[in-house]
Amino acid sequence: MNQQYPSALLEKAINEFSKLPGIGRKTALRLVLHLLRQDSATVEAFGGSVIRLRNEVKYCNVCHNISDTDVCQICANPARDASTICVVENIRDVMIIESTQQFRGLYHVLGGVISPMDGIGPGDLQIESLVNRASAGDIKEVILALSTTMEGDTTNFYIYRKLEKLGVKLSILARGVSIGDELEYTDEVTLGRSIVNRTVFTGTI
Amino acid sequence: MNQQYPSALLEKAINEFSKLPGIGRKTALRLVLHLLRQDSATVEAFGGSVIRLRNEVKYCNVCHNISDTDVCQICANPARDASTICVVENIRDVMIIESTQQFRGLYHVLGGVISPMDGIGPGDLQIESLVNRASAGDIKEVILALSTTMEGDTTNFYIYRKLEKLGVKLSILARGVSIGDELEYTDEVTLGRSIVNRTVFTGTI
Repeated sequence: MNQQYPSALLEKAINEFSKLPGIGRKTALRLVLHLLRQDSATVEAFGGSVIRLRNEVKYCNVCHNISDTDVCQICANPARDASTICVVENIRDVMIIESTQQFRGLYHVLGGVISPMDGIGPGDLQIESLVNRASAGDIKEVILALSTTMEGDTTNFYIYRKLEKLGVKLSILARGVSIGDELEYTDEVTLGRSIVNRTVFTGTI
Repeated sequence: MNQQYPSALLEKAINEFSKLPGIGRKTALRLVLHLLRQDSATVEAFGGSVIRLRNEVKYCNVCHNISDTDVCQICANPARDASTICVVENIRDVMIIESTQQFRGLYHVLGGVISPMDGIGPGDLQIESLVNRASAGDIKEVILALSTTMEGDTTNFYIYRKLEKLGVKLSILARGVSIGDELEYTDEVTLGRSIVNRTVFTGTI
């Protein structure tokens, strides 16, 4: 569509929306026209919410997760197992692992993975503060829960070299066949790994 | 996902985004986290653009299209044919018809169609101002370009009854087989109408 917008204000709003990931100009137009039909207070609440989030957000001093306080709810919760740290790439991964309800320890948000192609080195990530936490003495296990990509594996190895002498148990997420998947549709690398890493079967999964 | 958000500010922003049409909570989270990674000025430009649009937008006094001025660029353009008015439901329809580059007349934006189910009557639409425009004497043709739905047809008929005595030519968009469609996949109602409304073929389309 060779579109000429009837209003510069409309065009500006559409331009801003179409900068968002996965939002094209047609979707941006639909979203902006939807907001235009709302009352002024609704639109101010919408626009204000992201501005406030961006300007007032804090990150936990301990694990670097997003937080409203200096120490996040998870790190400050005495019911959680403070001797286990799960290392993740970003705050979304924290939410995903929390939603499984299978982990009661604390987190450490790296802020990404080592990726020379994107110019991200170890110094750009929260690795030093992870080493400091692991050196403090109360930590028994560090679980590496990074992406199963080359960048994730590079970062896993880098952290392994930094922590190996501290006497902390290092573990990594199990890699294998997805639950609910048929073997026919599992890629060979994953399937091969799941055979090598097979676990003892005692009658229950 | 049974998600508990680590920050009330984050949750508020996600709630606002997930009110948008077609945006679920997972997409809202992705968009908000994207904005969180941008610098403060970028996020303020984003949020501010919709607030400004909502608070400062004007509508053309003549055709009710969105506009930065009291009379929109289309109505104010002397090169356009002021004797032909195309009646559309909303400002998006204006943009879609403009993108075809097949219409050089003016528009009239109704702001919807008559829909008793949604509580929208003729009084909620810009029908009276259309009658006033058509009565002014300079108008030769009014083209009805509303949705081909029951509500659209009801509105077409309502406008027909209002304009029939003014001596203005009333026309409606051609309904027929979409260009590029195979007959096999055209619904019977459309196909039947395209036979009844067949046009004289002179060797070229």
